[in-house]
Amino acid sequence: MPTQSDAPFSYDGLDRVIHEKARLSVMTSLISHPKGLAFNELKTLCGLTDGNLSRHVQVLAEAGLVAVHKGYEGNRPHTSCALTPAGRERFLEYLNVLEQVVRNASSAAEDASSLPSGPGKLKPA
Amino acid sequence: MPTQSDAPFSYDGLDRVIHEKARLSVMTSLISHPKGLAFNELKTLCGLTDGNLSRHVQVLAEAGLVAVHKGYEGNRPHTSCALTPAGRERFLEYLNVLEQVVRNASSAAEDASSLPSGPGKLKPA
Repeated sequence: MPTQSDAPFSYDGLDRVIHEKARLSVMTSLISHPKGLAFNELKTLCGLTDGNLSRHVQVLAEAGLVAVHKGYEGNRPHTSCALTPAGRERFLEYLNVLEQVVRNASSAAEDASSLPSGPGKLKPA
Repeated sequence: MPTQSDAPFSYDGLDRVIHEKARLSVMTSLISHPKGLAFNELKTLCGLTDGNLSRHVQVLAEAGLVAVHKGYEGNRPHTSCALTPAGRERFLEYLNVLEQVVRNASSAAEDASSLPSGPGKLKPA
């Protein structure tokens, strides 16, 4: 396998557990609400269905990134979720890598915007 | 389904074809090389195996984001790839959304860093 320095675009820090689109929504919602969110609030903020949210929260909980609290509010079951300290830390590390992706790609796009491009002009290596 | 304004963290613009980690590597490599890249160069830059790169390039080609050129260099087969104009445009749109994710999450993390947090302090909604 190539090393990191040979593979500047491999982005090994993009943890797949967090990178999946729905889970990225969940993590971003939760880091914005450090006291946690009720399951139903989280569902609305992320635009997910019950089943999808349950599935993805379970993946995050199994990875130790999210804590799920099942309790009661009056007589009704009430589930809430919050980032764990480890989840917060790993998400911040992930965000650093994501920022790097945006920076690399945006500066490349700017550099390239005045150059000829397109499939008809491939350079033989 | 909730509307976009109800679901500020749904990030509908995070196109799954591009968001997958290996394909994000490929797209970033290619936007950095507007004249295209030989398959082997791309493989090294992304830290992918032959099989993985082939599979992901095929997904991107089927979506019209990447053009694949199969030719010869002397007597040896030579495959190269480049972003299509549509691929470049869609990747730039994707990057805008990604930048939004980083901005939202980073500012939330800063706002929250002085607040109490953790699963023991979940707020009943």
